[in-house]
Amino acid sequence: MCLDYHERGHSFEAVERDDGLLELPGGPELYFERPGEWEPLDRNAVEWAEGRVLDVGCGPGRHALALQERGHDVTGIDLSPGALRVARDRGVEDARKCDVADVEEMDERFDSAVMLGNNFGLVGSADRAPVVLGGLAAVTTDDATLVAASMDPTMTDRQVHLDYHERNRERGRLPGRVRIRTRYREYVGEWHDYLHAAPETMRELVGDTVWTVEGVEQDGPKYVARLEKSA
Amino acid sequence: MCLDYHERGHSFEAVERDDGLLELPGGPELYFERPGEWEPLDRNAVEWAEGRVLDVGCGPGRHALALQERGHDVTGIDLSPGALRVARDRGVEDARKCDVADVEEMDERFDSAVMLGNNFGLVGSADRAPVVLGGLAAVTTDDATLVAASMDPTMTDRQVHLDYHERNRERGRLPGRVRIRTRYREYVGEWHDYLHAAPETMRELVGDTVWTVEGVEQDGPKYVARLEKSA
Repeated sequence: MCLDYHERGHSFEAVERDDGLLELPGGPELYFERPGEWEPLDRNAVEWAEGRVLDVGCGPGRHALALQERGHDVTGIDLSPGALRVARDRGVEDARKCDVADVEEMDERFDSAVMLGNNFGLVGSADRAPVVLGGLAAVTTDDATLVAASMDPTMTDRQVHLDYHERNRERGRLPGRVRIRTRYREYVGEWHDYLHAAPETMRELVGDTVWTVEGVEQDGPKYVARLEKSA
Repeated sequence: MCLDYHERGHSFEAVERDDGLLELPGGPELYFERPGEWEPLDRNAVEWAEGRVLDVGCGPGRHALALQERGHDVTGIDLSPGALRVARDRGVEDARKCDVADVEEMDERFDSAVMLGNNFGLVGSADRAPVVLGGLAAVTTDDATLVAASMDPTMTDRQVHLDYHERNRERGRLPGRVRIRTRYREYVGEWHDYLHAAPETMRELVGDTVWTVEGVEQDGPKYVARLEKSA
């Protein structure tokens, strides 16, 4: 999907949810936008990054490139080989295939980590969140900053979403936990969990970790949080 | 999908094939195009219609409106209640819910029938084609014209299509028979057969019917055929 957009200027990203919902959330155009085209929320968020930065779920490098231009040393990680090829081709100096739950294997030390473009969702679920947040703690410095973008799933009036949230609650799950996969032409991604977490949910999820939510900037359902490592 | 595009100016149409392929073939924008935006093939094809016209698979009324503007009395049929509502709202004077295999139930008499926008595909399969073509014969006059648009499925180099054609041949099916359904957000259409038939295939399919292919205008894989009722 990223390769076709990069090489031919057109492709699409369809996201399928396990209840049969199919949406075109805006990619891939979105993933190639330059900072001037970003929403103010995202432009402000990159300013919170410090020093050497880990870009979690870097895709074709939208945020990594902007951070490099701001003088940061950036390592991008993603699971998609195609997205990583495009990221490198566009100038991301260090783009590696790595699951966010396995960052400890990298044996590196970053001053900050960013989960922009809604990528706090990569924590996946309440169960997986401590693993991911612990891994990010392990590869960052003692006074590291974590910049995490998410959205409040309950700020919607679409019945299909409200029904989905209700089924999640009935199963003891957070309402915004979605099981999704990406589809583009003959390419079908793996089913995986993704989490839309309201700010209060994010605060609860990080409660038992070394991270603390120090600031939140919100615009409608979307928000970006600045988390700091507690002493 | 048509309602959202009509009322809000945006929506999308994803078409899923039973081998997992997912494509955005171009609708709904395409279904709302005015004749000035059409490909020359389609502009020429509407000129082949005569007298009272049956528009098979009229959707939101792209061809029906153009035919009305040319002075024809037009009846559009479609299976989608949403598309029919939009067609009526846009000015199609007679838009009814009817399967093309059931046109005989209408007890009407048309001077011509059009299957534009690739809608010869609605014959579905080699088995179903005689039923559909017989029904269209029953509701048309003795010297009626049938205008049928299709495409040659073999004019492609995409492996996913070539593999699909091969599996069809192995099962004794025409290569361009596809089992598809439409998806848009939470709306999932019924799985149904659709047939992409090269001109020579169309000639074979109509061989045992009262219809004869009298002319073909082709542009790449796409073509429109003019069929006449044999004496």
